[in-house]
Amino acid sequence: MSSPLCRLKIINGNTCQPMTANIDAYAQAARFPHTEIVTVQPRLGPESIESFYDEYLAIPGILEQIILDTESDAFILACWGDPGIEAAREITSRPVVGIAEASLYMANMLAAKWSVVTTLHRVRDMVEKTVEKTGLTQRCASVRTTKLSVLDTEQDRQATLDVLTEASQLAIQTDGAEAICLGCAGMSGLEQQLEERLGVPVIDAVAAAVKMAESLVSLGKTTSKQLTYRLPEIKEMKGYETHFSAESFRH
Amino acid sequence: MSSPLCRLKIINGNTCQPMTANIDAYAQAARFPHTEIVTVQPRLGPESIESFYDEYLAIPGILEQIILDTESDAFILACWGDPGIEAAREITSRPVVGIAEASLYMANMLAAKWSVVTTLHRVRDMVEKTVEKTGLTQRCASVRTTKLSVLDTEQDRQATLDVLTEASQLAIQTDGAEAICLGCAGMSGLEQQLEERLGVPVIDAVAAAVKMAESLVSLGKTTSKQLTYRLPEIKEMKGYETHFSAESFRH
Amino acid sequence: MSSPLCRLKIINGNTCQPMTANIDAYAQAARFPHTEIVTVQPRLGPESIESFYDEYLAIPGILEQIILDTESDAFILACWGDPGIEAAREITSRPVVGIAEASLYMANMLAAKWSVVTTLHRVRDMVEKTVEKTGLTQRCASVRTTKLSVLDTEQDRQATLDVLTEASQLAIQTDGAEAICLGCAGMSGLEQQLEERLGVPVIDAVAAAVKMAESLVSLGKTTSKQLTYRLPEIKEMKGYETHFSAESFRH
Amino acid sequence: MSSPLCRLKIINGNTCQPMTANIDAYAQAARFPHTEIVTVQPRLGPESIESFYDEYLAIPGILEQIILDTESDAFILACWGDPGIEAAREITSRPVVGIAEASLYMANMLAAKWSVVTTLHRVRDMVEKTVEKTGLTQRCASVRTTKLSVLDTEQDRQATLDVLTEASQLAIQTDGAEAICLGCAGMSGLEQQLEERLGVPVIDAVAAAVKMAESLVSLGKTTSKQLTYRLPEIKEMKGYETHFSAESFRH
Amino acid sequence: MSSPLCRLKIINGNTCQPMTANIDAYAQAARFPHTEIVTVQPRLGPESIESFYDEYLAIPGILEQIILDTESDAFILACWGDPGIEAAREITSRPVVGIAEASLYMANMLAAKWSVVTTLHRVRDMVEKTVEKTGLTQRCASVRTTKLSVLDTEQDRQATLDVLTEASQLAIQTDGAEAICLGCAGMSGLEQQLEERLGVPVIDAVAAAVKMAESLVSLGKTTSKQLTYRLPEIKEMKGYETHFSAESFRH
Amino acid sequence: MSSPLCRLKIINGNTCQPMTANIDAYAQAARFPHTEIVTVQPRLGPESIESFYDEYLAIPGILEQIILDTESDAFILACWGDPGIEAAREITSRPVVGIAEASLYMANMLAAKWSVVTTLHRVRDMVEKTVEKTGLTQRCASVRTTKLSVLDTEQDRQATLDVLTEASQLAIQTDGAEAICLGCAGMSGLEQQLEERLGVPVIDAVAAAVKMAESLVSLGKTTSKQLTYRLPEIKEMKGYETHFSAESFRH
Repeated sequence: MSSPLCRLKIINGNTCQPMTANIDAYAQAARFPHTEIVTVQPRLGPESIESFYDEYLAIPGILEQIILDTESDAFILACWGDPGIEAAREITSRPVVGIAEASLYMANMLAAKWSVVTTLHRVRDMVEKTVEKTGLTQRCASVRTTKLSVLDTEQDRQATLDVLTEASQLAIQTDGAEAICLGCAGMSGLEQQLEERLGVPVIDAVAAAVKMAESLVSLGKTTSKQLTYRLPEIKEMKGYETHFSAESFRH
Repeated sequence: MSSPLCRLKIINGNTCQPMTANIDAYAQAARFPHTEIVTVQPRLGPESIESFYDEYLAIPGILEQIILDTESDAFILACWGDPGIEAAREITSRPVVGIAEASLYMANMLAAKWSVVTTLHRVRDMVEKTVEKTGLTQRCASVRTTKLSVLDTEQDRQATLDVLTEASQLAIQTDGAEAICLGCAGMSGLEQQLEERLGVPVIDAVAAAVKMAESLVSLGKTTSKQLTYRLPEIKEMKGYETHFSAESFRH
Repeated sequence: MSSPLCRLKIINGNTCQPMTANIDAYAQAARFPHTEIVTVQPRLGPESIESFYDEYLAIPGILEQIILDTESDAFILACWGDPGIEAAREITSRPVVGIAEASLYMANMLAAKWSVVTTLHRVRDMVEKTVEKTGLTQRCASVRTTKLSVLDTEQDRQATLDVLTEASQLAIQTDGAEAICLGCAGMSGLEQQLEERLGVPVIDAVAAAVKMAESLVSLGKTTSKQLTYRLPEIKEMKGYETHFSAESFRH
Repeated sequence: MSSPLCRLKIINGNTCQPMTANIDAYAQAARFPHTEIVTVQPRLGPESIESFYDEYLAIPGILEQIILDTESDAFILACWGDPGIEAAREITSRPVVGIAEASLYMANMLAAKWSVVTTLHRVRDMVEKTVEKTGLTQRCASVRTTKLSVLDTEQDRQATLDVLTEASQLAIQTDGAEAICLGCAGMSGLEQQLEERLGVPVIDAVAAAVKMAESLVSLGKTTSKQLTYRLPEIKEMKGYETHFSAESFRH
Repeated sequence: MSSPLCRLKIINGNTCQPMTANIDAYAQAARFPHTEIVTVQPRLGPESIESFYDEYLAIPGILEQIILDTESDAFILACWGDPGIEAAREITSRPVVGIAEASLYMANMLAAKWSVVTTLHRVRDMVEKTVEKTGLTQRCASVRTTKLSVLDTEQDRQATLDVLTEASQLAIQTDGAEAICLGCAGMSGLEQQLEERLGVPVIDAVAAAVKMAESLVSLGKTTSKQLTYRLPEIKEMKGYETHFSAESFRH
Repeated sequence: MSSPLCRLKIINGNTCQPMTANIDAYAQAARFPHTEIVTVQPRLGPESIESFYDEYLAIPGILEQIILDTESDAFILACWGDPGIEAAREITSRPVVGIAEASLYMANMLAAKWSVVTTLHRVRDMVEKTVEKTGLTQRCASVRTTKLSVLDTEQDRQATLDVLTEASQLAIQTDGAEAICLGCAGMSGLEQQLEERLGVPVIDAVAAAVKMAESLVSLGKTTSKQLTYRLPEIKEMKGYETHFSAESFRH
């Protein structure tokens, strides 16, 4: 039995090229042989997403990566927070997977309680809302924020590892976490070292999303167009390139 | 005792000029004498918001209206769904009020249970999530969607009134609603006729938001900059005008 | 444009005259020029409300202030806990605003998470139930009780300020509060000093309720008489003055 | 082994003597031989409780029955809604059982889902809040209200039985109820006939509460005085008889 | 009035005879004179239940005690966690009471908030799920686990008492508990000493369940056979004794 | 890049051989080429699971299939309800996936709301509890039960298809479902025909679980042994074969 090719596009929500490269490297390591992965970043948007403001300004560029794509079988939104995912599901019937939801589902199959360990303290509310959106708040032992900016996670891997270790140990010892979800795409590639240090499962969100996307594609699943995720209505879209008009992706 | 001037900017989330004019007319009727209201619409974004896609593409233009404003005392997001409100609260310390939250708080002070009556069937999930975000799901008797597009609500007022009457009566008789929240800024100005037909309070969301904004301004309240709603970090913002950079609004 | 007069009656839930005077002073400072405020206290009931027992015995006297009133346009229940508010909404169609709900709605428009800082430790459960009733439990960072009795808050303002400062700082630093709701009408007038000390928004519940009541009156809103808040049925009411009979307020 | 005597006082929340007699008759039938039951009604308050207003005006008279009692081992609040129960638990350490909570706990041990079938349509919100207070909303299939007033349930037993049968059958067939809780003390004595007609367990709330009270007394349990249910503070209580002052029940 | 005999069978979920004897002794002390109690243990299953694995392997033996019983009027599942209780309710119409649910209902009538104090740290998740199943999570101040195994609680009563005292004091002082539920049948008989040490109500779950079962039997209540708890369908049951076939208990 | 072999064991919870064969056929069709699947059924337990009783009696046999296995990389519990899954996670560190959770996570990535369509009406409560356990109740439009027994689904595929079509259409048109989860392993293989008839995504739970298990294995993930899912304590296990003793799987 030979697998049909599965072409995934990973969209880094941040416009930071080294981070895109890092995500790509770890995603390639997580894919099945029959999967092809292309990792891209938006043409417009913030270098890194660390506030609601950053997140909302990143979304048009993320969506554009889907609108202009005619080759991928599924899309992965590689920013913990799954920015714009409902809109992404409207503009295509090809599956869209968010790295946050994927990592939480995976954690839920491995541990009774888990914590999300992530970047700057200010994102606590954003992270809690993302957990809430998946419905898994009751299984979440805690959200542990740190002093790490998104770009820090790329630039000093050893220091990042140390900060994540410390925050994770607090989550385990104080909050009752039995597994750790890394709450930022920039942390990809650190999960194995963390697992060794901590002795509990550590979920890399990008890898989790690659597996979910491969799964949906291999089963031939597509997003429901029944009601909520129907293609957007055609209408004037002021100040955006014409490909943002629903006419461009309704055929 | 004479009131200091209160200058409000209402930002129609839709880029549809007649709707902006309509919102303005009814907002002017709802303001206190010492309040000045300017109603604007984004430079970029969809003519009307009827999907998550429309909503996310409307947000940058909505935020720009706040970023470039130096004169208003508070802002009102005039699209039921309060698009981008968390980001709006990050980029200014001046109060930001969403018409959805304002209308639900007001309904909650007038009735034990209420329904939201709104536009196209496809927005049901968006509306339910907005109600959930305010925490008032338990008080919501139902969300009643209709065949009305946002633009329909502007163009044929009599037909709109009839459709809303029918949907509201179902909400009252079948779902147990004791008040009605009109779930679209385009429905402003119909609440009195509806109240007469239905015999229960009907909340116009724009008017509710005008009162909430006047209240916050008159008490001298500002948005908390403690953690979640801090000013965004300064960073590169690709593909947007320079005023979108956090540098432009951090001083 | 000149405003019609708005006549508000504030009902202190406690039968403590100096507290009534204090509430009145700060309410007058919060009103719009076209608003007239009369602040009263019940003829019967406890000097201060610090238990469920106190609260229930306060309610008949609170309701009597509404029953016998023919002049006010709206009522404010000035005891955090909003005692008897559902009954108050049954016996009149004029708007009734509770200071607890008003302050929580206002806090919710200014901060992602807030704490309630209040009086004696024993009221924790009452306060948590009040927050639950508004549906905003998920946005509540914590309830912080103190050693302050209700009357303490009136008698030693400086000590009260110090105790509230300490409790609020714990709420901010330990519980993640980004704004503070003062959970007692007796604390009115301290919010500005607290804001200066704490650096986050501090909500005075009486002022918040004045604005909500002014808002409802100015929009011409009345309480729904559809089902839950219908006028009570006429029936024998043993041992109460005749004006407590529903006959006296059904016409 | 012989049982010590257990003296229960049942407090009808309504000041309607025939209803008190009816409650007493069915409570006597439900008690164990070693239990003595006295059923009383408040000196002041409404003939029947059918609104929040009625309920709040009933509470002082209900509490007085506890304050003045020196002989009972436990108290039962015989009005579905358990009016004033938190206050009742403050003013005595002897157990206080509400007929609503008792009936819901019992239903929960007999059926996966149950409905509350009760009086006038206007009490729906009150009943839903009572269910919510016990925490069992998720197990509640529905609240079915009827055209029956409280006094109707006393006066025409056959018609009451027919109305309850019809409402219960709807609850079973349409809402998925597998047991029925009778939501009014006035319905006591109809449960057996209803059970025969319906084929599912029917819970009489007064009988359920008698058993709960006997249970607590026989185990020697008393209400916690740790924090929430401490005796109320001593303070001036204007316009009430002196026995309402906390001094009268603090020794 | 003389009571009809009430015959209860208590089923220790653990196959540890000294624990069965202990449960029996304290249950006998809690029963009414007209009640007869037989306490048994399963023929098959773990010596003690301290994991989900232990719990699931205990269930067939627990159910067998009901299947083979023709004499009891009601059954008590004497393992905190109420293992297999939904199945127990399917295979008989005689009432089945779990000691966990019984103790939580009783605690809820005595205190505004309570904690469960129990055995090994690893059972925290099991205990939280049991509390969740009753719907009372919101009233639960905390679950406090200890280093005590189930068998420890039987073998060194003094040490057990000390460990429970310490954990309970933490629950009271740190978590806000106002009563304590002992979360293991092996702790029966310690509640009075604990109450004296702690000064708050301490609920013995076995005693609570005896009272609930006596209550249901005396009111003639039976489990609903309407839908969920219908007798199981007749079908082949491989590898179990023939009495496990539904044929043996459907007549 | 060549994939390491992934060996999955699927455990049909029912002891019905034709159903095991059917599950195996459709699982083989869903696997990746590098995956090997063995499908087994318990040595002991009910022919089909249609009640809590059936479910609990199935669990020891299900767990035995894991205890005695030394070759598989992961396990799939192929009975919607995921019977005994917490225990399964205790007795091995190899991943265990339930078909219910897997199907719900997958549905959640494809649709805003979905319904579970399943067998006999009596399982409604079991199914609702399973959905609740995953935390996704809010996304569940409805549970639609039918007249189909588990064995029916195997024996008359055409009739099964018709009944499922009808129930699904009601879920879509009446309850707002936008995708359908098939709530029984016996329904595997019908999803494509149903998708064609319904026009919305239909999730086969077995296929979903195969993908989740492949994902976890390929990422090298193992179940957390931190606390809840630790290996069970060693103790006497009466009446079971010796391999059920924790000694047999603790090394």
